[in-house]
Parts: sequence; C-alpha cells; structure tokens
Amino acid sequence: MRQATRLIRLETGGRGFHDFTAALADFVRGARIGEGLLTVFCRHTSASLLVQENADPSVLTDLEAVFARLAPEGARYAHDAEGPDDMPAHIRAALTQTQLSIPVIGGALALGTWQGVYLFEHRRRPHRREIALHLIGE
Amino acid sequence: MRQATRLIRLETGGRGFHDFTAALADFVRGARIGEGLLTVFCRHTSASLLVQENADPSVLTDLEAVFARLAPEGARYAHDAEGPDDMPAHIRAALTQTQLSIPVIGGALALGTWQGVYLFEHRRRPHRREIALHLIGE
Amino acid sequence: MRQATRLIRLETGGRGFHDFTAALADFVRGARIGEGLLTVFCRHTSASLLVQENADPSVLTDLEAVFARLAPEGARYAHDAEGPDDMPAHIRAALTQTQLSIPVIGGALALGTWQGVYLFEHRRRPHRREIALHLIGE
Repeated sequence: MRQATRLIRLETGGRGFHDFTAALADFVRGARIGEGLLTVFCRHTSASLLVQENADPSVLTDLEAVFARLAPEGARYAHDAEGPDDMPAHIRAALTQTQLSIPVIGGALALGTWQGVYLFEHRRRPHRREIALHLIGE
Repeated sequence: MRQATRLIRLETGGRGFHDFTAALADFVRGARIGEGLLTVFCRHTSASLLVQENADPSVLTDLEAVFARLAPEGARYAHDAEGPDDMPAHIRAALTQTQLSIPVIGGALALGTWQGVYLFEHRRRPHRREIALHLIGE
Repeated sequence: MRQATRLIRLETGGRGFHDFTAALADFVRGARIGEGLLTVFCRHTSASLLVQENADPSVLTDLEAVFARLAPEGARYAHDAEGPDDMPAHIRAALTQTQLSIPVIGGALALGTWQGVYLFEHRRRPHRREIALHLIGE
C-alpha cells in the first residue's frame, strides 16, 4: 500500500465552474495506483468543489443562477468588509462541498460517464486557489 | 492493510429516498475488515447520497418537499431538453452529497443509531443507478 | 501503513457553530502520522459538519441567518413530534455535511489558513454529540 500527496494551484477566471478532472486523472496515472482512493480538498471557504454534468454547459449556467438566488448579493450581511460578493461566497461554499473522495478502480477514477469535477469559484474576481490531493492504494 | 472495491446497482422507483445501508453493511462484513474506511460514490449527477434519520419516515416526506421548493420544476431553465425534472435533479444533487465516507470500527459501520444511508433519486421515473464502493482497512 | 480510530464527544451549547479543529489536530499529532487522511463523521442527523472561515465570527452569524431562512421553524412539517426545531435541524443537516476527510501532509492537517472545522448544532438545546474519527497513513 502506498500514498501520494500534492498541492495543486488553479487560477480561476472569477465566478463560475472550472473543470479540473484532467488534473486529477493525471495525478492518479502518475502515481501508478491501480486501486485506491483519491481525496480532493479545497483549502478555501469562498470557493468549493462540485461533481456535475460535463455534457451540456447550460447545466452550469442554471446552477450559477440557483446559487445567486440562494445566496443573494443584495442582502444585509454582518460580514460585509470584504466586498458584496464575499459573504455570498461563504454561503455557496457551505451549500456545496469542500472535499470529495473518488474511488480508483482499474487504474482510473470511478466517475460516471457524464461526471466532471469542478472547482466552483464564488468570488467575482479571478483567484489562485489551492487544492490538496491525497491518494492511497496500490 | 487491504482494499476492496465494488460497483453496485440500485433500481430506484422514481423520485425519493432509497435506504441501502444494509448493502453497505454486507459489503463490509464480506470483506472481513474490522477497522477501516468505507467510501460510497454515486456515479450520477441527477441522483445523490444523504445520511438521514431512519426512524420516522415523515422526515423524508418533509425533506422531499423542501427540495421541491429549493429546486422547483416550474422555473425557466436553460437546460430543459431532458425534461422538466432534469435540471431540478442537478440542483438537488448539487445541494446534497455525491460521496460519503464512513469509518468502520469494531467490524461495523460507525453510523449513529438513527442514521440510514440513502440514495436520493431526483428523477421522476425509475432509474438504474451505479454506486462505486471502496473499502480500506484490516 | 497504520490506522487509528476514536469516538469523541462534544457538548454543544445549543444551536450554532462549535470549532473543534484543535481536537482533530491533537488526534493526528497523538497518532504520529506524518502523511495520511483524517475522516470525521458526525453520528447524528440534527447536527452536521462544516468547514468555514475562522477569522471573522460575523461569517457564522450570517450563515446561521441563512439556514434559518432555508429551513424555517414556522413551516408546516409532517415530522413535528420532536419539537419545532427538529425538522429544520434535519434540513440543515441535509444541506451541509455529515462527513469530512482532510489530507494530512507534513504531520499536519492540510487546512487553509482561514479554515476551521465546525460542528454545526441545529437543535436549540445543548446536546452531547458523538463524532467518529478515522486516520490512515504513516
């Protein structure tokens, strides 16, 4: 049994979904793990992770609209010193995932055919985000 | 230290909660792992996972009503080619879990007394869903 | 490769956020694991887990207000025998996390600078909550 860890950095172009499934698959391939478990951890509270459909991009457009409604920018927040998009970003992060673990079977991530792994950037401006990866298996 | 992986298929009867805790417990027992970690991964983006109360079924009735309100079918979605229940299904999946990991202690899942593990089917029609399992321990 | 498991108990002072990051860090340090994966599992369905900002406490005030809106106490629930705050508690738990896994890198949890791990108590009254921990690594 072996482990591998890595910190990867993703540059986001501001609010929206950033598909980084390929970077995860590369990490698993490079570690030559045939069967195991990959854990993906987002080191931020104003960005988060989501597994979603990678086929029709309009799914992501609709999801963005849903989260804009669930975490509106116009509301009165006690936490408002970091800009009108910061507290909504924390709410969006609370409603989605900070961490995902994906089984590795037959040398590949056991994702479904239409699943992509997304970094969901919640701030308006581009950010550099850090993701911690942990892989265990053999 | 050992691992075991499996793909299981669950037939859902359409929208609602499907308790499959027993299938998970069977998998752990069959692998003869006394201490470890079970990971459950849903390979779909219009169904998801949830740990919820297994005592009073009315909890699930109320939860269904909450998600029907948070992800209404009547809204105007850009993604509407797969039926009026498809985009709401993606929203419900985004707000719940695609993956769960449960410690195994003393040969059993460390679930609380009133916790069940549910596949939450979000589409109206019955579907066959695939769940990837990963178990590590000894 | 080694494992460690533990059940810890947290006394909550009623509804709100309880930062127990230090207890998790202690567990990892005590197990002398330099590289690995910590899994945290909440054994309840009316309390849950959340990684959130640990810098400005007003973030938590705003989050509490958001969940009070998403899971209102005044609504008519089928499940109402355990008090007006019980079904809202299940909804809050469904919308947040029951489980978190955090990579251990260089002997420490790979949390971001401003991330804390919180037990989110959803019931009004203080409760004793059980959290199952699983650590694997070397």
